[in-house]
Amino acid sequence: MSKYCFGVDVGGTTVKMGLFTPDGELLEKWEIPTRTEDQGAHIIDDIAVAIEQKIADRGIEKDDVLGIGVGVPGPVDKNGVVFQAVNLGWGVVDLKSELEKKTGFSVKAGNDANVAALGEQWKGGGKGYDDMVLVTLGTGVGGGIIVNGKMLIGVGGAGGEIGHIHLEDKETEPCGCGNFGCLEQYASATGIVRLANRKLAASDRESVLRSQPVSAKHIWDAIKDGDPLAVEVAEEFGEYLGKGLAIIADICNPKAFVLGGGVSKAGDILITYVRKYYQKYVFHASRDAIFALAVLENDAGIYGAAKQILE
Amino acid sequence: MSKYCFGVDVGGTTVKMGLFTPDGELLEKWEIPTRTEDQGAHIIDDIAVAIEQKIADRGIEKDDVLGIGVGVPGPVDKNGVVFQAVNLGWGVVDLKSELEKKTGFSVKAGNDANVAALGEQWKGGGKGYDDMVLVTLGTGVGGGIIVNGKMLIGVGGAGGEIGHIHLEDKETEPCGCGNFGCLEQYASATGIVRLANRKLAASDRESVLRSQPVSAKHIWDAIKDGDPLAVEVAEEFGEYLGKGLAIIADICNPKAFVLGGGVSKAGDILITYVRKYYQKYVFHASRDAIFALAVLENDAGIYGAAKQILE
Repeated sequence: MSKYCFGVDVGGTTVKMGLFTPDGELLEKWEIPTRTEDQGAHIIDDIAVAIEQKIADRGIEKDDVLGIGVGVPGPVDKNGVVFQAVNLGWGVVDLKSELEKKTGFSVKAGNDANVAALGEQWKGGGKGYDDMVLVTLGTGVGGGIIVNGKMLIGVGGAGGEIGHIHLEDKETEPCGCGNFGCLEQYASATGIVRLANRKLAASDRESVLRSQPVSAKHIWDAIKDGDPLAVEVAEEFGEYLGKGLAIIADICNPKAFVLGGGVSKAGDILITYVRKYYQKYVFHASRDAIFALAVLENDAGIYGAAKQILE
Repeated sequence: MSKYCFGVDVGGTTVKMGLFTPDGELLEKWEIPTRTEDQGAHIIDDIAVAIEQKIADRGIEKDDVLGIGVGVPGPVDKNGVVFQAVNLGWGVVDLKSELEKKTGFSVKAGNDANVAALGEQWKGGGKGYDDMVLVTLGTGVGGGIIVNGKMLIGVGGAGGEIGHIHLEDKETEPCGCGNFGCLEQYASATGIVRLANRKLAASDRESVLRSQPVSAKHIWDAIKDGDPLAVEVAEEFGEYLGKGLAIIADICNPKAFVLGGGVSKAGDILITYVRKYYQKYVFHASRDAIFALAVLENDAGIYGAAKQILE
């Protein structure tokens, strides 16, 4: 008899859903809109309905459903309670209990970044590494840490908030979190643009970056073309991120770092700059950590969400 | 029928041993010398003999022994294999297998700092906190991280090497590890003495610290007496350590930090300086972490060693 599990990745505009086999085959994926009105009061209902409908459509026996795993954009504790997911309109929501009550299935829930790390560890760039760190370089810097095959959740679900580790005492602009000098201020897509704009403003040196609005993609293209100013930006970016990952390694001693998010589309050249500084700053025991690129892209969340109920 | 377990803390000069009940009552503790000659080839034998003798002396049934937990000054992986314990003369030693073979009992082994954290979490300053960090401020800075009640070991047993997280780009003297600007260079007993000596050398300002050879204890006594120069040293010390612990919290989101080691004998005033800067630098989700002092002192190792086999 076949068994099934569901992976649900709740975002601010859509809820991504996946139907999986227990060995990680994605049988089908689909999306429903995230209804954030009324403080997101309908989201859990909508998920329950979508799952029941899928079960009916495919003629799946309820006894063959192992459970539903969910990822949420906010801190989620070990009991599946969400503490504020601003993008969903949620305050404190006992997601696990509510979705279990509505569906009758076993539910596990985690923070979306942590869940994505579990997905990459299960079937993506971190496959086979029981101790790994996913670093998501997007608008911000997010992360998920897998320790001995499990998500590092922490006491309040805020484990893996690596974008906010303090790296720069001299920063004068605040991070979105209110602090100054967070990793995210340098290693995100907006962060590398800030680094480039600061360097452009500091002199009149020629650079291809002057001929266009600066974006992370333009910067990496210019780095690949050998634009000297852009290469200096890459060194700065690599030093901040490499130093940050070195600190994480001193604490967690992972086998691998997996880099994802929009900035990681720069590819292997990104790893070259990051690893150079990582190896400079890390304690010798972690010097040989593997650097890899994420592979599951937007599906990492549904993979990891589903994996939660197989643990 | 009573059950028993042994906790063994292997140091460079003595092996501390404890006989425990499964609920953590220390029935007896004793020590044997650590024979480091012949690359430490006799250490495992000596432990086995000491345990067999204790069992015979007390008339304990072998079936009532749940196992032996060991802590070792070096990295130990999840399988109980030690990778270099310089103070013991050991290279790669399969401690778990060897001690199991010699005694017939189940064995678990871990790094001594990680094991001490488990001890403080079980019966010491971190009791009741499933997610906590032990920070040992001694000659160096060591640490152990407990995640969901278990030691964060990492892929090669180097989890929790918090003394070597990079904090200061401007450092010109190397750390013992070969890097520059490690937390240990500021927050250890020798670190705070360096901070004080640098400040004394930088001016002719009066300070009670000028009348004696500077030690960590003298510095904290001077801080408590309100010596202005010493208070500035406390601020610097607090900023380095508070910043370091903030970064750890961003990554691990612990409920509590437990401070141990010689420097922690300064007591609550130490916590005052550290927490001030911790709260400045930490991501808001971890701002309310508890700070406590370690209580088990030199027994933390045998407690945590024994706890390993009860997991």
